[in-house]
Amino acid sequence: MGKVFVIGHKNPDTDSITAAISYAYLKKQLGMDAEAVRLGTVTGETAYALDYFGFEEPRLIQKAAPEVSKVILVDHNEKQQSVDDLDDVQVLEVVDHHRIANFETNYPLYYRAEPVGCTATILNKLYKENGVEVPKNIAGLMLSAIISDSLLFKSPTFTEEDRVAAEEMAVIAGVDTQEYGLAMLKAGANLNDKTLEELIVLDAKEFSIGAVKIEIAQVNAIDVNDVLNRQVDLEDLMRRVIAEKELDLFLFVVTDILNSDSVILVLGKEAERASAAFNVTLVNNVATLNGVVSRKKQIVPVLSSALK
Amino acid sequence: MGKVFVIGHKNPDTDSITAAISYAYLKKQLGMDAEAVRLGTVTGETAYALDYFGFEEPRLIQKAAPEVSKVILVDHNEKQQSVDDLDDVQVLEVVDHHRIANFETNYPLYYRAEPVGCTATILNKLYKENGVEVPKNIAGLMLSAIISDSLLFKSPTFTEEDRVAAEEMAVIAGVDTQEYGLAMLKAGANLNDKTLEELIVLDAKEFSIGAVKIEIAQVNAIDVNDVLNRQVDLEDLMRRVIAEKELDLFLFVVTDILNSDSVILVLGKEAERASAAFNVTLVNNVATLNGVVSRKKQIVPVLSSALK
Repeated sequence: MGKVFVIGHKNPDTDSITAAISYAYLKKQLGMDAEAVRLGTVTGETAYALDYFGFEEPRLIQKAAPEVSKVILVDHNEKQQSVDDLDDVQVLEVVDHHRIANFETNYPLYYRAEPVGCTATILNKLYKENGVEVPKNIAGLMLSAIISDSLLFKSPTFTEEDRVAAEEMAVIAGVDTQEYGLAMLKAGANLNDKTLEELIVLDAKEFSIGAVKIEIAQVNAIDVNDVLNRQVDLEDLMRRVIAEKELDLFLFVVTDILNSDSVILVLGKEAERASAAFNVTLVNNVATLNGVVSRKKQIVPVLSSALK
Repeated sequence: MGKVFVIGHKNPDTDSITAAISYAYLKKQLGMDAEAVRLGTVTGETAYALDYFGFEEPRLIQKAAPEVSKVILVDHNEKQQSVDDLDDVQVLEVVDHHRIANFETNYPLYYRAEPVGCTATILNKLYKENGVEVPKNIAGLMLSAIISDSLLFKSPTFTEEDRVAAEEMAVIAGVDTQEYGLAMLKAGANLNDKTLEELIVLDAKEFSIGAVKIEIAQVNAIDVNDVLNRQVDLEDLMRRVIAEKELDLFLFVVTDILNSDSVILVLGKEAERASAAFNVTLVNNVATLNGVVSRKKQIVPVLSSALK
């Protein structure tokens, strides 16, 4: 059927990059001419994982067609998070762990979503179901993804199935999960060497909730003040993005990976309804969400219910 | 979590009814309080299968809430084919083999779609993955579904995976597939005792392609003239449905189960574009589509490409 791109979401995180590599490897073993590609710059955290386990970054693409006519999506399904010309190619498969929205196909497809914390956990099952062994360095990537998505197993998105997968991957990869995991997270949480322009797109996702257009950017930090010290300039930048993309709401989420809380900076005409949804009051556009670390499980559903 | 409804699509066919029963049984074995329900009258074919293997019809429901707050969808995902109050409940899982469209959730879920000919083929895998044996009478239902969806293995939707599942189910159920299958199909293809009002909703599905609103009803026949003899009255009825539902196109598909062809009766303002898409000319609103038996694989994709 010709080459197939395996694609993670825009502003890729560690799960998106490593899932593309890990699933492309599996599909190649099964006879498909699959290539992992990426839709954006890899984070410091992901670069650490790729380097540690001996991988190059996947190739950066802007469009899928005309090089390929078929794609596989991993770690996402929403069109606005995917390759720009998604409508011009056929989606053969999706492997994901998010809600389903803004996704439509003309043809039946293989779609495998499970409500687990990480795409890698599902990929581990797919390796087993297809009778393919996970190689040592791929196991390292899959472990990295689970650590990343769960903030070292602390996120409420982290399930028993993720724990089982992480333990299996750690054995195959031969690493100490806690030691390796903290080093990897710290490599991604060093925000001082990042420009605000970089921070704002690092892990940003767009959502449409009813008629409300939202962007939620999230960064991990050892010290949230690394970001808050630059609040004035950050707000200028956020307001520019709001105007350009005609957003109704922009949440910038700074997650404290050591204390498992998040500080949110909220702008846009729906800012008050958003903060009310979390039962917090914005002071100087900022509030702390205690115990909140997961955009998917603790932020998007709350906003969905409140803004629909 | 309280009771969960397992729901097939409106105007249920054999796969929808039996998948609801078969998956509810599996979920009950796994500890969920699951109940198979249905959204419409069972066909003569489905009644034959239920009776043969000793099952009652699932309970008919109009709405899911407030009796349940969570549902599992089988054999469909498009909102307009599902329970009317789908937006008021949480979709926990989907097991399906159709394209994905008009489907959206707030939360991550278990979604298992595969491009195979029948939901039962996927359910057979889920029984295995969960280590639950398929009971003899459930195997009979699952075999019935594969026979129904593939017109006794003749449809282009029928895959190698469906063949394997059908063979496994036939062994467990202890029936002669060809003999049982033809008797079951004939029980559903006796159209003379059906009113036109019954025929028109028997296996009708709505689709939205871009801004074009379409209804496609399909019936199986031993003799297509059982329907065509009543064309004038059928057209009156179709025009009434077009007006009521504000359809742009209504295809009534009569599939000859012995010769594996279909006759289409086409009304609505998009009728010419629809017939052009199939490279046929409508004579008195009617045309024959040689070798076409599958709405999903041979009709919907053709219309999707042409009308988008």
